[in-house]
Amino acid sequence: MNYRVGDRASVRRTITEADIVNFAGITGDYNPIHVDEEYAKTTIFGGRIAHGIFSAALISNVLGNKLPGPGCIYLEQTLRFLAPVRIGDTIEAEVEVIEIIEAKRRLRLSTTCKNQDGKIVLNGEALVKI
Amino acid sequence: MNYRVGDRASVRRTITEADIVNFAGITGDYNPIHVDEEYAKTTIFGGRIAHGIFSAALISNVLGNKLPGPGCIYLEQTLRFLAPVRIGDTIEAEVEVIEIIEAKRRLRLSTTCKNQDGKIVLNGEALVKI
Amino acid sequence: MNYRVGDRASVRRTITEADIVNFAGITGDYNPIHVDEEYAKTTIFGGRIAHGIFSAALISNVLGNKLPGPGCIYLEQTLRFLAPVRIGDTIEAEVEVIEIIEAKRRLRLSTTCKNQDGKIVLNGEALVKI
Amino acid sequence: MNYRVGDRASVRRTITEADIVNFAGITGDYNPIHVDEEYAKTTIFGGRIAHGIFSAALISNVLGNKLPGPGCIYLEQTLRFLAPVRIGDTIEAEVEVIEIIEAKRRLRLSTTCKNQDGKIVLNGEALVKI
Repeated sequence: MNYRVGDRASVRRTITEADIVNFAGITGDYNPIHVDEEYAKTTIFGGRIAHGIFSAALISNVLGNKLPGPGCIYLEQTLRFLAPVRIGDTIEAEVEVIEIIEAKRRLRLSTTCKNQDGKIVLNGEALVKI
Repeated sequence: MNYRVGDRASVRRTITEADIVNFAGITGDYNPIHVDEEYAKTTIFGGRIAHGIFSAALISNVLGNKLPGPGCIYLEQTLRFLAPVRIGDTIEAEVEVIEIIEAKRRLRLSTTCKNQDGKIVLNGEALVKI
Repeated sequence: MNYRVGDRASVRRTITEADIVNFAGITGDYNPIHVDEEYAKTTIFGGRIAHGIFSAALISNVLGNKLPGPGCIYLEQTLRFLAPVRIGDTIEAEVEVIEIIEAKRRLRLSTTCKNQDGKIVLNGEALVKI
Repeated sequence: MNYRVGDRASVRRTITEADIVNFAGITGDYNPIHVDEEYAKTTIFGGRIAHGIFSAALISNVLGNKLPGPGCIYLEQTLRFLAPVRIGDTIEAEVEVIEIIEAKRRLRLSTTCKNQDGKIVLNGEALVKI
């Protein structure tokens, strides 16, 4: 396999109100913290936040499109949601190869989402098959 | 907290071609295994499959809407993708309380997605704060 | 054919952030100039701009719905992108018949998109069959 | 500029009913040939076809994401719609550098969309600034 520990790839997106509305619509996840501003204002977040799984989807985006890219099979993912993503935040999802399992044709990658201030909002690990 | 170990909730959805197209659009995850039938036909799956994270989103849907429901904060999720989800499959996402951490107001839940044949396509665990 | 040189029709739309997000999703065109505000701020545009092809789609809208309207077949289109379309701009897409080719049942139309200040952001010509 | 005549890039997508519905929704282009099956059956196409501008958007996708990629500015595009795109067709949009204008930092590219049978459904040329 043509990969090295330390290989990295990323995508970046500004998370808009439209993204949150659309994600709620597609998934049916209408938790009021995502779609009810009046409710969200009363919480510790002070306003609507994006779905944590939306950030996870950006990681899947990088895995499927860039590293390892088309043809990989998603086996496992761990996710720790560390900070909220608010409307207008620009999120960079980055993956980095941390282990190459040649015999099984698998890669283990660290997976991280950071906001525009460099704050980590999500981290975890992915296991994929090539 | 008004929960017991063994409490369960679920949602069920037929996964359509439109769901896959829309999920690709929202997330930018245009991996050809999801959106290019000609490519997908040549893989071991024999055709397009849904994004694994789409199934994860159905779990998030149950957590945010039903158990524990509105107000919960998503802390952690582990995901093992065990089988493909194809267009037309009907997926049931179910969560079950497996541990109640009173002091920290947290619940640990097992999380499972099964298809219409009862085959487990995704499992893992969630940790949420009430 | 019941058309005259000089016949005109138009549609007008305010271009929102949601339009840009959705257009990126539908087309897969996630060029950062459209979806990454942090990146876009560093460019000569100073912020995110709409996809040029979105303006072209408004022209197609007029052709297919108004002039010549349902039943027309789109044969050719030339497009010159003259100025950026920003979030909040109101764009008027206008078509005007400039040539009637009776024998082949074809119309040639000039096609223009202007913003709320009257600035032309896109122009070109369309050739359609009735 | 780091480009050569003959450089190529492409994207490929299966065009689904959902894509056509979504594209109509985003653009407002509800020409019945795209969204009214009963009408479309009576035309020479025998059924609904995709919007021509949707194929053009796939070209924009390649230009903005791959070649020349992020940072390019779209100046001009010519489009000839040569054959219909039907639901289920898999379309490959390809761009190829045909002229490098160093002094103005511009590239001219041929732009083509083909279906799964290799039939050209759209061609034309793009002019972009780097």
